[in-house]
Amino acid sequence: MNKKQLLWILSIGTIVCGISCTKTEKPAADAIEKIISEMSLEEKVGQMTNLTLATIANEVDSTVVVDTAKLNDVILKHHVGSIQNVLTHAYTLNEWHSIIEPIQKLTLEKTRHKIPFLYCIDAVHGANYVYGATIFPHNIGLAATRNRTLVKEAGAITAVQTRAAGIRYNFAPVLDVGRNQLWSRFGETFGEDTYIATEMGLASIRGFEGGDVSSPLHVAACMKHFIGYSVPQNGKDRAPAYIPEIILREHFLPSFKAAVNEGTHTLMVNSGEINGTPVHASKYLLTDVLRTELGFKGVVITDWLDILKLKERHQVAETHKDAVYLAVTAGIDMCIVPFDFSFTDDLIALVKEGRISEERINESVRRILQLKKDLGLFEHPYLEEQAVKAFSDQAYSNTALQLARESVTLLKNENGILPLTDKQKILVTGPFANTLSELHGAWSYSWQGNIERLYPDTLNTIAEVFKKETPATSIFDLSAWTKSNGWNKGALIKAARAADVLVVCAGEAAYAETPGNIPDLAFDSVQVEVIKELSKTGKPIVLVLLEGRPRIIREIEPYCNAVVLAYWPGAQGAQAIYDVLYGRYNPSGKLPFTYPRYSGTLLTYDHKLLDEAVEIVEPYQYFYEFNPQYAFGYGLSYTTFSYSALKISSDTLVANDSLTVSITVTNTGKLDGQEVVELYSRDLVASITPSVKRLRRFEKIALHAGESKTVDFVLTKADLAFVGQDLKTVTEQGAFEISIQKQKTTIYYK
Amino acid sequence: MNKKQLLWILSIGTIVCGISCTKTEKPAADAIEKIISEMSLEEKVGQMTNLTLATIANEVDSTVVVDTAKLNDVILKHHVGSIQNVLTHAYTLNEWHSIIEPIQKLTLEKTRHKIPFLYCIDAVHGANYVYGATIFPHNIGLAATRNRTLVKEAGAITAVQTRAAGIRYNFAPVLDVGRNQLWSRFGETFGEDTYIATEMGLASIRGFEGGDVSSPLHVAACMKHFIGYSVPQNGKDRAPAYIPEIILREHFLPSFKAAVNEGTHTLMVNSGEINGTPVHASKYLLTDVLRTELGFKGVVITDWLDILKLKERHQVAETHKDAVYLAVTAGIDMCIVPFDFSFTDDLIALVKEGRISEERINESVRRILQLKKDLGLFEHPYLEEQAVKAFSDQAYSNTALQLARESVTLLKNENGILPLTDKQKILVTGPFANTLSELHGAWSYSWQGNIERLYPDTLNTIAEVFKKETPATSIFDLSAWTKSNGWNKGALIKAARAADVLVVCAGEAAYAETPGNIPDLAFDSVQVEVIKELSKTGKPIVLVLLEGRPRIIREIEPYCNAVVLAYWPGAQGAQAIYDVLYGRYNPSGKLPFTYPRYSGTLLTYDHKLLDEAVEIVEPYQYFYEFNPQYAFGYGLSYTTFSYSALKISSDTLVANDSLTVSITVTNTGKLDGQEVVELYSRDLVASITPSVKRLRRFEKIALHAGESKTVDFVLTKADLAFVGQDLKTVTEQGAFEISIQKQKTTIYYK
Repeated sequence: MNKKQLLWILSIGTIVCGISCTKTEKPAADAIEKIISEMSLEEKVGQMTNLTLATIANEVDSTVVVDTAKLNDVILKHHVGSIQNVLTHAYTLNEWHSIIEPIQKLTLEKTRHKIPFLYCIDAVHGANYVYGATIFPHNIGLAATRNRTLVKEAGAITAVQTRAAGIRYNFAPVLDVGRNQLWSRFGETFGEDTYIATEMGLASIRGFEGGDVSSPLHVAACMKHFIGYSVPQNGKDRAPAYIPEIILREHFLPSFKAAVNEGTHTLMVNSGEINGTPVHASKYLLTDVLRTELGFKGVVITDWLDILKLKERHQVAETHKDAVYLAVTAGIDMCIVPFDFSFTDDLIALVKEGRISEERINESVRRILQLKKDLGLFEHPYLEEQAVKAFSDQAYSNTALQLARESVTLLKNENGILPLTDKQKILVTGPFANTLSELHGAWSYSWQGNIERLYPDTLNTIAEVFKKETPATSIFDLSAWTKSNGWNKGALIKAARAADVLVVCAGEAAYAETPGNIPDLAFDSVQVEVIKELSKTGKPIVLVLLEGRPRIIREIEPYCNAVVLAYWPGAQGAQAIYDVLYGRYNPSGKLPFTYPRYSGTLLTYDHKLLDEAVEIVEPYQYFYEFNPQYAFGYGLSYTTFSYSALKISSDTLVANDSLTVSITVTNTGKLDGQEVVELYSRDLVASITPSVKRLRRFEKIALHAGESKTVDFVLTKADLAFVGQDLKTVTEQGAFEISIQKQKTTIYYK
Repeated sequence: MNKKQLLWILSIGTIVCGISCTKTEKPAADAIEKIISEMSLEEKVGQMTNLTLATIANEVDSTVVVDTAKLNDVILKHHVGSIQNVLTHAYTLNEWHSIIEPIQKLTLEKTRHKIPFLYCIDAVHGANYVYGATIFPHNIGLAATRNRTLVKEAGAITAVQTRAAGIRYNFAPVLDVGRNQLWSRFGETFGEDTYIATEMGLASIRGFEGGDVSSPLHVAACMKHFIGYSVPQNGKDRAPAYIPEIILREHFLPSFKAAVNEGTHTLMVNSGEINGTPVHASKYLLTDVLRTELGFKGVVITDWLDILKLKERHQVAETHKDAVYLAVTAGIDMCIVPFDFSFTDDLIALVKEGRISEERINESVRRILQLKKDLGLFEHPYLEEQAVKAFSDQAYSNTALQLARESVTLLKNENGILPLTDKQKILVTGPFANTLSELHGAWSYSWQGNIERLYPDTLNTIAEVFKKETPATSIFDLSAWTKSNGWNKGALIKAARAADVLVVCAGEAAYAETPGNIPDLAFDSVQVEVIKELSKTGKPIVLVLLEGRPRIIREIEPYCNAVVLAYWPGAQGAQAIYDVLYGRYNPSGKLPFTYPRYSGTLLTYDHKLLDEAVEIVEPYQYFYEFNPQYAFGYGLSYTTFSYSALKISSDTLVANDSLTVSITVTNTGKLDGQEVVELYSRDLVASITPSVKRLRRFEKIALHAGESKTVDFVLTKADLAFVGQDLKTVTEQGAFEISIQKQKTTIYYK
């Protein structure tokens, strides 16, 4: 974990010289085998070794500089084949080129086999480590849009902006289903539903990979984090999970299975453990399930430091060498070590001792070389001009804006307080009214996303958008309540009294991964207090929530006339929020999770009926009740929609046939709007207790005021299936309730 | 669920006549087989049917009266062999006799085979449905005593007082390990540790059964609730649990396995479901594991309404008949229907239809008749005079008092504010200062334990004990703050100002089972507010907590100079609390669970190291931290103990040998006291990630001031074992850390 220090600085001249001028031969079909046959053990293990940029570079006055001596050590002496990520923050395109091109040059010019070098990155919501790139809402917001087309577009933009930096491998998307709202990476998931996570995950992957990762406009995607990462028992990042296999297969395997079938090139392993077995040491999960059952042929990469952690944290290995043995035997191909050569040295020793066969090493190297080949690295290893040219485009910002708009979820709108009008005086306040960090959240220019000075000047905070758009009616008193200075009661109340409506931008300060751990979902107590004080002015309050997970608002919700959930909306978030508040965009976001009312009761929408059972003593009555703050799928519009004419092509679905369910949706209000039509099924009797409902289909449609559209959904038996006691997927004969909004019908599977 | 109404009242004369004067023949070794061979299907199924008292009786002006017509219908027409529990509240011995004896008389005189009738009850913490019986602390408090001898004594007293009522079958003890502190039955468990739950469960069972349930001084015990009941995912009673089998076997099976080996006569099934399979429908758990693997030969009884619920709540059966089929096929012997003949009728039909064999019915009837035989019912079916004579004894109350004293757990004692002195003026206040319900909790004279008027006049509240013991210095203003009238700020502050110390009796109002469901562990907000107000007087506050589960005190703890956790201490609870507060008893209670600091972080002491991992951003440090409000095993004394001279007979444990660990404990303070010596093990490396520690032995010792004692613990490989990936128990070779208090050593298993 000790960071390597840099002593020598490369001149920019040296860096630029190698770009786009050398070309390796294209390997033939069996070229990879030929290379492998000629590689030394040390060269092979070097390909399996992934280090962090800190091992070859340093930041001097915030500028990254590569240390040639260290670079030579890493590439020439230890034969390392890939490096990843940043030291502490994002770099410009030029900086990226100055880092990556010399590594490639050295590799191609000075190594025996000229196997091209691969750079990897966490581009989690846009190319968040590349200055000038477009930052989108985090996945939780993307899921709220229910817009597969735009999510794919965001993936494609991320891909091109990453590739333009010279980086061809992106550690995204998260396919973990977010079924524990306390988890600090909840905002990186597509929410609690397995179907949405699968659909949105696939859309992202299609955007990243584009069906051809040799294209200069695409990158290799990484399905992560296989598997069960998102439900740590104590809600803390990387903490142990306890998942019965039937649940693992019902809720957590499908998104990975679909992505494997899609041809996704790589997969990253869950840093945690399931039922006492670290996933990095699980041959069952990494080989039996992933390789044999799902048929995955791509590269399996560890997460950060995770082989070391088998010894240090999980304590399943007595020595680091044992840890390497466990992980390689379980099935990993590449190790994010990332600070030293411990993995490299121990793996070489294990092979020399005969504990691991060289054939096992060859398997991993074969996959890694195949990935490099697929990425076009053998053919065009240096920076691709086509990618650089495609780096900037106004359309990208428009996509980010539209995604942010469509993500914003209107949860309360008492007496139609929203949309605001140009005639109202608006106080824009709250700790996050004038920050960029909380619009972006995790992984934004820095790991935690909370270093305000790193954000580009071109971006606007919420306050800045108000100032720009409606300067005459927007009130600011930045001495009154800010993130950095806290709140000044006198100033705030005075400002509130001068306003017609108070827009309070609150929620949680930016964080990522383990540092974002919290003990419960309680809302910040100071924010609670201030909102209560503000409510005493009698002015209507519009609460704008910036948060990666649902913080409990039970106590403050009654004081707020409107609640607008913006998640972590990214670079265009402030504009999108403004557009929704003023009705320039009619909100259409739908919750991709159950917004809990209490921190101690975190249930998903697809719980069991038994979860809802309530018993009162007198007169010994039982009833069923599920009462979250807001239900999964909830989200208001400024217009209204009516659902009618639910029809089924047949009431019986036979064997492998299909059945069509159609519904007519009408915009019954006075404004144009978008609506998400969701189809749920409910198994009335099953051998495994059925969920109260399961989302099976969704479609987003646009309807002008007064317009009607009919939506068709085609169902097959797969849409009525579940994982049975024998861990196999089954569709049982019998009755199923199909519902779309409040329309219901019953179908039978035979 | 409709309660049957009573029309006809038996005269007391009729009731008394049959007592202790008839005797059936003792069945020979194969007498049971002979009876079975002569029984009709309807008679057999009647034996498997268990109804509630409401089906044959009613309460008229709070007096229970049996309806002969209904009784005839139940016993003669439907051949029912057992009835249970109360209508709404406890009865006197005479009332019990007047209920039970006529049923037995009718059964023995008017049924073909004269198979004696069996009455069953929930005597959860003493014979809580028998007026005049002794009420002990709930199991959570018993676990805090760590006193196996006294817990067994409590079981024995409960047995004799139950049998004196004519009842020979007690649905206790709870062997579920309390690993979710939110669960409303947490207080009925022996806490979070599997070893303590097993040891205390065995002590209870030994008290109940006494090795001979035909004895008039004992009753049949019931291991409950098999299995996995105590960890509902959402914390609600009877809600779905998700338990990987490795965890089921590591934490939840051992207490049942030990109790089966002890020869416990019956077992009750978990009303919930595990991993989507209701336990009542699980052939794997009820037959493969319980019968085949554990070798249980006794009676398996359902819980309340639970076969019906397979259809209604779990939705794994389309009809009630299918539900009966599932449960009987899974392995239940007796069904607590309890309101009608639905089970009886459907089971008869299933056999007639050939879906269930009569041999399967015979298996259950055989076990039920064997239970009745073991209970001496064939030999002495009526009320046993020896039991009635043994019903009352001052020693019982002394046991209850001593258990309550030893349960009280002193969690904070700033500046030695405790013990109080006779010279201090003490304000005794708080919502539960003058109630009996909150001293008793669940299952106390009524199901919920919250009907104050049902409590005997002879019992004292905390305020009453203060008044009795130190009338001159005890201050009450019952208008100031009571459960029923809330708090009167003026009166309370005035009273506080007149006192030297404020004893605040707070916590949670009594509840039982599902009605005790709560959404999180937050402390009552009014109590929080009042304690904050009281703290403004500057008077020291002693917080006495009456609660069945750990409500979060993070916010109020800083305002309290002492915190005294009394759990639900029972009939002698007020005296015990007083004795501890005044130093008449030097507290020795130790937490049997981890007292959480936040409602969202409910971890047990035996979590994994990974659960403790904390990562801070700069300078990217990792460390380990576990910071509950109070740790498992915590509990202060008014004296101090030092631990020294930790010795091991060898540093290596070989195969099936044993190894002795000894420690010397010295009372280094000025008061006599009791101390619980706890030995923990920590597996340093294991194939399943090891717990940070596991309790392996405890011994409670008494030490005079200045006295030393040496305690020996003998360990075998079983004490270092865990459940492996193959679901088999294993002790792996290697190093184990053994710790007693802060003394540590390392041993090796070979």
